[in-house]
Amino acid sequence: MPRGRFITLEGGEGAGKSTQARLLEEALRAAGHRVLRTREPGGTAGAEAIRGVLLGHGPWDGVAECMLHFAARREHVMRAIRPALEAGSWVVCDRFADSTMAYQVFGQGVPRAAFDALAAVALEGLMPDLTLVLDIGPEEGLARAAARGETNRYESLDPDFHARVRAGFRAIAAAEPGRCAVVDATAAPEGVAAEIRRVVRARLGA
Amino acid sequence: MPRGRFITLEGGEGAGKSTQARLLEEALRAAGHRVLRTREPGGTAGAEAIRGVLLGHGPWDGVAECMLHFAARREHVMRAIRPALEAGSWVVCDRFADSTMAYQVFGQGVPRAAFDALAAVALEGLMPDLTLVLDIGPEEGLARAAARGETNRYESLDPDFHARVRAGFRAIAAAEPGRCAVVDATAAPEGVAAEIRRVVRARLGA
Repeated sequence: MPRGRFITLEGGEGAGKSTQARLLEEALRAAGHRVLRTREPGGTAGAEAIRGVLLGHGPWDGVAECMLHFAARREHVMRAIRPALEAGSWVVCDRFADSTMAYQVFGQGVPRAAFDALAAVALEGLMPDLTLVLDIGPEEGLARAAARGETNRYESLDPDFHARVRAGFRAIAAAEPGRCAVVDATAAPEGVAAEIRRVVRARLGA
Repeated sequence: MPRGRFITLEGGEGAGKSTQARLLEEALRAAGHRVLRTREPGGTAGAEAIRGVLLGHGPWDGVAECMLHFAARREHVMRAIRPALEAGSWVVCDRFADSTMAYQVFGQGVPRAAFDALAAVALEGLMPDLTLVLDIGPEEGLARAAARGETNRYESLDPDFHARVRAGFRAIAAAEPGRCAVVDATAAPEGVAAEIRRVVRARLGA
């Protein structure tokens, strides 16, 4: 059985990641693939419990927060993502390690070396086959999230924080163009979905 | 103000760490020191929340479990232990990084390299000035813990696990004799306390 492909959606608040993950799942299923759609932090019982602690407590020391994210990610990878890929399913994941890089390293100033060490321990080399960075200005993204009634503690952080997060996602994409594609997320959802579908076909042939 | 000293108590279930931590705190206070007595996993609000997840869920992937312990430890170090030491207090801590080494690396088989990487990220070189390894046979220790009505999910693990944990603590002490002292924990509590007091005086001059 051929290994499935691992696709992550990344981006700031209100970029439309959850909607696009659903639409991409539908499109891949329609193309005949089995699909696991999941999200971070979370995706398994243990990881969801860690998510509850992460969001329900804090503010955390930045390094501790990275460790919590990678602990949840490790559970998610070992119990859900890797088994699904090995069983031939495609995996569509709303946020993955790039979010920790963008929010904690670029946004909060956690040292890059700490991120790299944690990623090496937790992931043992597992990387997405394709990462779609949904790019939108922080003002517009936060306004969209607020209009949906969604707030989290990141949204109350200062505008500079969100500007650093966006710049972080763009820097990640620029540094790894073979893995990442930046998608303009300001268009209507159907337009963004069509562009994502085009990128997936071009990069993964599916 | 001179920096305080950092003393950890380590050992398997039922070794008497909590009792000895209290008695050592009393002795150090009687000798004129300010003392923070604390425990792991826990010791701060965030770390206690992580403790709740650690103990209330699982079984965890071994690497994820190490990461949760080090996330709690990082919070504990940054918000409680390091500030106390810098303010001149002595810190007496019931379990620290050696417990993660003994339980997860020796007991559960997590790679030593993963432990080392996580310890480097979380601790940035902070090590106890003195580690007292309370040594007791697993059968006797588990019987003591059971007699106190204390059970946790480690106690239900197979006897080989507890033998590996004990051997792990002894190996840690043998590898770092300048930091560690093995104390026979089978004696009566007052006898163990007297021996601990003697070691603290000999090693730390207090």
